[in-house]
Amino acid sequence: ATAGAGGLDPARVLMDILSAEQLRENLEYYASGAHVAGTNTTQADHTRSHFERQGIGTETVEYYPWLNYPVAQRVALFNASTGAVSFEAGLQEARVPGDPASDDPHNLPAFHGHSADGNVTGRLVYANYGTGSDFRALGEAGVSVKGAIVLMRYGVVPCAYKVHAAELAGAHGALVYSDPIDDGYGKGRVYPAGPWRPASSLQRDSVLRLDVYPGDPLTPGYPSTRDAPRLDPRDAASLNRIPSLPISHMDALPLLVALQGHGVEAADISRGWVGGLTSKGVRYWTGPSALAVNLLNQVAYRTVPIQNVIGRIKGWEDPEQVVVIGNHRDAWSAGASDPSSGSAVLLELARALGELGRLGWRPRRTIILASWDAGEYGLAGSTEWVEENIDWLRADGVAYVNVGAAVEGSSFRATASPALKDLLYAAAKQVAYPHSNGTVYDAWLRDSVAAGARGRRPAVQPLGPASDTMAFAVHAGVSAVDFGFAGSGGARHSNFDSIQRVAAFVDPDMQLHLAAARLWGQVAVRLADDPVLRLSPTRYAADLKRYIRQFERKMALLLRPPPKGPGLATERLGHLRAAQHQLEVSARIVEDSTRHLRLVYGEDCQMAGRRRHRTCLALRASINDRVSKLERHFIDPDGAPGREWHKHVLVAPDFGAASGYRLFPALADALDAGDALQLREREKYIAGMVHEAAWFLREA
Amino acid sequence: ATAGAGGLDPARVLMDILSAEQLRENLEYYASGAHVAGTNTTQADHTRSHFERQGIGTETVEYYPWLNYPVAQRVALFNASTGAVSFEAGLQEARVPGDPASDDPHNLPAFHGHSADGNVTGRLVYANYGTGSDFRALGEAGVSVKGAIVLMRYGVVPCAYKVHAAELAGAHGALVYSDPIDDGYGKGRVYPAGPWRPASSLQRDSVLRLDVYPGDPLTPGYPSTRDAPRLDPRDAASLNRIPSLPISHMDALPLLVALQGHGVEAADISRGWVGGLTSKGVRYWTGPSALAVNLLNQVAYRTVPIQNVIGRIKGWEDPEQVVVIGNHRDAWSAGASDPSSGSAVLLELARALGELGRLGWRPRRTIILASWDAGEYGLAGSTEWVEENIDWLRADGVAYVNVGAAVEGSSFRATASPALKDLLYAAAKQVAYPHSNGTVYDAWLRDSVAAGARGRRPAVQPLGPASDTMAFAVHAGVSAVDFGFAGSGGARHSNFDSIQRVAAFVDPDMQLHLAAARLWGQVAVRLADDPVLRLSPTRYAADLKRYIRQFERKMALLLRPPPKGPGLATERLGHLRAAQHQLEVSARIVEDSTRHLRLVYGEDCQMAGRRRHRTCLALRASINDRVSKLERHFIDPDGAPGREWHKHVLVAPDFGAASGYRLFPALADALDAGDALQLREREKYIAGMVHEAAWFLREA
Ligand SMILES: [Ca+2]
Ligand SMILES: [Ca+2]
Ligand SMILES: [Zn+2]
Ligand SMILES: [Zn+2]
Ligand SMILES: [Zn+2]
Ligand SMILES: [Zn+2]
Repeated sequence: ATAGAGGLDPARVLMDILSAEQLRENLEYYASGAHVAGTNTTQADHTRSHFERQGIGTETVEYYPWLNYPVAQRVALFNASTGAVSFEAGLQEARVPGDPASDDPHNLPAFHGHSADGNVTGRLVYANYGTGSDFRALGEAGVSVKGAIVLMRYGVVPCAYKVHAAELAGAHGALVYSDPIDDGYGKGRVYPAGPWRPASSLQRDSVLRLDVYPGDPLTPGYPSTRDAPRLDPRDAASLNRIPSLPISHMDALPLLVALQGHGVEAADISRGWVGGLTSKGVRYWTGPSALAVNLLNQVAYRTVPIQNVIGRIKGWEDPEQVVVIGNHRDAWSAGASDPSSGSAVLLELARALGELGRLGWRPRRTIILASWDAGEYGLAGSTEWVEENIDWLRADGVAYVNVGAAVEGSSFRATASPALKDLLYAAAKQVAYPHSNGTVYDAWLRDSVAAGARGRRPAVQPLGPASDTMAFAVHAGVSAVDFGFAGSGGARHSNFDSIQRVAAFVDPDMQLHLAAARLWGQVAVRLADDPVLRLSPTRYAADLKRYIRQFERKMALLLRPPPKGPGLATERLGHLRAAQHQLEVSARIVEDSTRHLRLVYGEDCQMAGRRRHRTCLALRASINDRVSKLERHFIDPDGAPGREWHKHVLVAPDFGAASGYRLFPALADALDAGDALQLREREKYIAGMVHEAAWFLREA
Repeated sequence: ATAGAGGLDPARVLMDILSAEQLRENLEYYASGAHVAGTNTTQADHTRSHFERQGIGTETVEYYPWLNYPVAQRVALFNASTGAVSFEAGLQEARVPGDPASDDPHNLPAFHGHSADGNVTGRLVYANYGTGSDFRALGEAGVSVKGAIVLMRYGVVPCAYKVHAAELAGAHGALVYSDPIDDGYGKGRVYPAGPWRPASSLQRDSVLRLDVYPGDPLTPGYPSTRDAPRLDPRDAASLNRIPSLPISHMDALPLLVALQGHGVEAADISRGWVGGLTSKGVRYWTGPSALAVNLLNQVAYRTVPIQNVIGRIKGWEDPEQVVVIGNHRDAWSAGASDPSSGSAVLLELARALGELGRLGWRPRRTIILASWDAGEYGLAGSTEWVEENIDWLRADGVAYVNVGAAVEGSSFRATASPALKDLLYAAAKQVAYPHSNGTVYDAWLRDSVAAGARGRRPAVQPLGPASDTMAFAVHAGVSAVDFGFAGSGGARHSNFDSIQRVAAFVDPDMQLHLAAARLWGQVAVRLADDPVLRLSPTRYAADLKRYIRQFERKMALLLRPPPKGPGLATERLGHLRAAQHQLEVSARIVEDSTRHLRLVYGEDCQMAGRRRHRTCLALRASINDRVSKLERHFIDPDGAPGREWHKHVLVAPDFGAASGYRLFPALADALDAGDALQLREREKYIAGMVHEAAWFLREA
């Protein structure tokens, strides 16, 4: 507990306990070999027994999602008339002498999680990043994708979106490669000489459509327990239907060469369509190619048991209230950065919390430590657990704190519910940034400003799609935060995401891991133990105002009316503006109550007087209830029209946008459809929810 | 503060902060050179700036005691008729190759602190350990000491007592050597081959008569500030009047040889008179010798400034209440064990308390960290400070915790006020004993039983003479405890008490230092921060009962009456027995109140109810007041008859007894004098004080 006058601050003590040496040991354990979800239980058992050794009651919670594994794969260029094969793609990553992770017999070939089984042949078309506008540009250039195999490069939007966009455009197969201009020698020296992605490197990925729903594709909205009813896989809307594979830029090069002179030169569409293989003499053309491409993606789908390891430290004051901290454990290969850096931090945090326990500490609220399985398979572990515990989380969830890849680089980045931003800022100010005189906050602000962010504080965007925060935030309405030290690619989802690479180029002395652990620990302990929760409705109201203005700018842009016409753009989101104002006023009332409590009673409610003590306890409980449940008021139980699993009305992960998030998703859909009436109707509906939230905040 | 439900235990967190590496650094600093009191201020300044770096407000408090330093010294055997010198003692310790501490240019020659200046000549007499009974035995054997130079060996009673006993017997000078059977090759391999005292080793010591009063000999009972009035040194009753020197057994050997055949063979007095130089062909005889001995002890007395470094961590709840933890800093040479092991621990404790502060903690009561100067000169630093702060300490002193030589060996030993024994046991159960599966308590109990102690708990004797506890316990009536890991001599007060010796033979991995620091930290933090103080009146009453029985046995032994006669021995200490019973009953009442408070309110007094909260706070304050002031009720402001500085009526350090303590000193004096009337009268007086104490405990 955060003690009263003279008491030790558990968050600071925890920071002292955390050890870089332990983190190194943990990292070496988790990244010691490939550990794809569903292939063994060793790491789950190790995690569980480590938690238990720390005195943390732990259970392994199994679910049974529908997962696929690679069986056979081929990408070949051939002459459809003669049948002569001119190129066979390797589809394997090279071995790097001295890095055993690159030589692990369990390493996978080229593979996309939840990809469609298939053996397809067609002409090749290059579609840049495979965004909606890229496919529109192809159409405008007169290039048909129908029946084609589409070659796209990683970046801008998630892989699943690219494959789906190709499918929508009528393609029969999709290949996705890492272009060196985005992630390879165009950025710097490649592994093992440097951190960047080498020529043979494959970026495996999930192609599950999280925009429909994450987790097991056969049990949308409910847990995939052993005996749960299942959809027919043909009815699972989150599955893409065309086969896909990732390829290396080494394998992409002959394909791009085969496109040269066919269709439209990419540079004629836009400069932004030209990748980095120009340095190898390639000129980017759209195709379709004269030669045909055969894409074989034979995969085996199975119902596979996965293991979430769930540790529980019971709260002493409000044991039903829960703060969840977690990361996924499974990896596409060794996964030193993604996710083992986060797993190492979680394990060390368990040790530190265990040590705090031995030092006499118990949190006020219950802490759940979650090591999720099958995160790489569309966030299956966290999604199924949230679906199973949805009633509890809606009633008593305080927050979810995710650290996926804790250390992929040295630039701090965070996405979060607005309610959690202030707490994150405060925590980042408490943690020293390695090899500097400043804090993580200082370094973060510097990087954020350098990246073009305005404002006095570092930028924190709304939660994006690629994190186990999704089910908590979007489905359950629990405020969530995701953070870590980011790089910009390099080895993600390849065999080269190895301990050797981390030790050589990412975090040789484990000090970034230590900083991540300290930050995670700070945030977790404050959430679990602050007498008065530091979730901020004021910040939420302020961000909502920014959201409204941002959406209004988008309306103005997309629906620019004929001069003097009665278009939408002249209209503002009037109802939402009014509701936001109410929320702002209510938030200020909560803030005043909190200040009052601090000044008059003290957060501890320790004073010599019966009525005062009771008043203080009641006021504190009321404030905590209001600030922790604010987020729940933005959950529409019916979900977004057409995407019912996604229930948050203010912001959603966006799979087709580079930003990764979508403000007022239902309004954005109406805007995309140009349906002004629906937009107005939905605005009123959302404004009504915000009004409700404002009233809820005011109920003292 | 010891936090409430769920709070971190500061004592345990402190134990985690303490570091063996830091302790090693500290030890290496303090033991890096000779640092005799009054010769420089470097270590005081270092200690102060270290405290200040930890955020601890610190001042250097100077006093100006009367100290002496060696100028010239000689011990020579010569023929008084011819003047032919047959032996000149070296009076220097040998250099040990590879141990720079043995080669420090600041090392002292043979020297006794506060010894009398003089150049005397006389025949030599051997007086064994120089106890009262040893001198009586010489008298009974017809050996006169008048005008002689007395040769005695270290052990059994303090050096000051030996010199005084020699003076009383009419001797003109005193030589004190370390016999190898007590402290040298008779025990094991000698330094540098082993830990034991080698042939050239001198044991320097203080010869100030602490039984009269400790501290500055010229300001008995008041602080020796710069402008304080001073006694004429000729009136200072704590000074011995005959010159004395310590010598090595190498130098003692020719002297013993000169005694052979003269007087009585020591073995004829008692087997216990024969030392260990028999293995070198020596037969121990009493003398007087035929040859004469010249003893020159030229010393320079000066009023010298000494520096106590006093750090202060202010309490938040009861800032006036004070717990003092301290050790002396000055040494006779490098003093790696005595006192630098304790100084190293104190410094590391300051760092850990500073770190606790940075972690948000403040103690309920004020903690004083005291690095005393001139401890080797009759406890001058602590004595003068207590004399200056006597009013504050009598009003608000909670306890004094001393760690002098923290690590001289591996056997835990402690002396304490009965009130502190239970706390010490509890703390020893919390600290792991190095290289074992058990705690310090386990090892201590094992050693204690092996040494013949009965009882279910390790033996804790009353406080003895050679510790800075003296002024606190005996003069101010503040409960005190002194502990450490003891050996049995070896290098005490010699140049060989060096870092090299500690690293090779005493505590190579600093784990005993770490255990001492943890134990000291536990005790200090509990005393300063427990909501309810764990001083135990029950234990005090039980020990008083043992004291009474022990004294009655002594009465029976010394005053064995003629059969059926009306001697003292048939009488019991009836008044004291009755008063002790009252004390026991009162102590049980306090214990019940404490149990009641714990069960009904909780130590934190945190409950939702005005009257209950106030009641609890009042009850707690009352309990704390009663248990911490119990000891003060055994202080007689008039002091013991003839030794007014010594004011504790139940127990006093005893300088003439091997046990080191004296029960009911005023009664013991009467018993020694055979004065039954006085004994009865004094018993009634002391019983009255115990009655008062019992009534005080009962006032709720
Ligand atoms: Ca499901
Ligand atoms: Ca004095
Ligand atoms: Zn990940
Ligand atoms: Zn990943
Ligand atoms: Zn000492
Ligand atoms: Zn000493």
